[in-house]
Amino acid sequence: MKAIDDAQAERHKAKMTKRKAVQDAEVATKTVEKGLLIINTGPGKGKTTAAFGLALRMLGYGRRVGIVQFVKGAWHTGERAAFAAFGDKVVWHSMGEGFTWETQDLRRDVAAAEAAWAKARELMADPTIGLVVLDELNIALRYDYLDLDAVVAALKARRGGLHVVVTGRNAKPALVEAADLVTEMGATKHHFAAGVKAQQGIEF
Amino acid sequence: MKAIDDAQAERHKAKMTKRKAVQDAEVATKTVEKGLLIINTGPGKGKTTAAFGLALRMLGYGRRVGIVQFVKGAWHTGERAAFAAFGDKVVWHSMGEGFTWETQDLRRDVAAAEAAWAKARELMADPTIGLVVLDELNIALRYDYLDLDAVVAALKARRGGLHVVVTGRNAKPALVEAADLVTEMGATKHHFAAGVKAQQGIEF
Repeated sequence: MKAIDDAQAERHKAKMTKRKAVQDAEVATKTVEKGLLIINTGPGKGKTTAAFGLALRMLGYGRRVGIVQFVKGAWHTGERAAFAAFGDKVVWHSMGEGFTWETQDLRRDVAAAEAAWAKARELMADPTIGLVVLDELNIALRYDYLDLDAVVAALKARRGGLHVVVTGRNAKPALVEAADLVTEMGATKHHFAAGVKAQQGIEF
Repeated sequence: MKAIDDAQAERHKAKMTKRKAVQDAEVATKTVEKGLLIINTGPGKGKTTAAFGLALRMLGYGRRVGIVQFVKGAWHTGERAAFAAFGDKVVWHSMGEGFTWETQDLRRDVAAAEAAWAKARELMADPTIGLVVLDELNIALRYDYLDLDAVVAALKARRGGLHVVVTGRNAKPALVEAADLVTEMGATKHHFAAGVKAQQGIEF
């Protein structure tokens, strides 16, 4: 084992005792409990996977989770297969028609976004659900497939206690303004740039 | 439904046809398949939850996942309860003794980090495991609980095909250098600043 002398151990203890007092005082100021509006945005990886990790955490407490995918369609993904282990605790709707450059059909994309948003509202109204993931909703808003004001108003008017996670690049400022927690995933380094392809279990 | 005139629909189609050509050409350049070294760092939320989302994705393909927690101890978390649904497909070791300001004991923290790293090496050597999550390893490295060079060398020498995710703030430059994919989670807005406390299903 790494050698640590007594003086070093004592200094560490004194420093951590002070730090604990600071931490405890800070934790004591946080008393509010509320359903959060969470945004995972930015060009980096982890926006959708972090939302699914949160869904998993909720499932660990026996809470029900609703997921609406605004871009992905009915294709097979690892996450969907895995969530099947939780039976009706997970309500899953893949409402997208695929990437906009695949469909090449604006009317079809708008219709898909509107249908997905209708599902989202239904899940948000369901009192048995504790967390709703709106995967890639930011993309639908960015391309004006949905009315931003109406979406923000509905998210703000969500039931007390309901957590909602919105994912996708380029979150609109009005949505960021309405959110409780916004994380920007930054791509410091990306394996695609090194010629690595999308792999099973990593990208899908 | 939102009104879209024919000219707008045509312009969209032309633009997306071009974009598809660009996308297809780009995808064609990516041919490498490899086990990735992935780092989720930064001050924002989602480092650990994104790692767990990735674990879930791997589980969806029937792959086995190993998780070692370097800071969290045996306390109950939603994610741990949820992963129990996958039986022996998930190998879970919470090897931490808690936050450094809780233990206030440098020797105990170092011993815990060394024991966790021994488990990590064991899981990395297990050919039945496709993904290993080293949760908060960055913290153990930041405080010099483990030898950075030895850790980086072992991660670089991982089996071909094995994906490893390392989480925690302040990733060391040598680790970033060795990684294939590095995401910096930035805290654009955090609910703790608004007095909201850590909540079940969100923070733990």
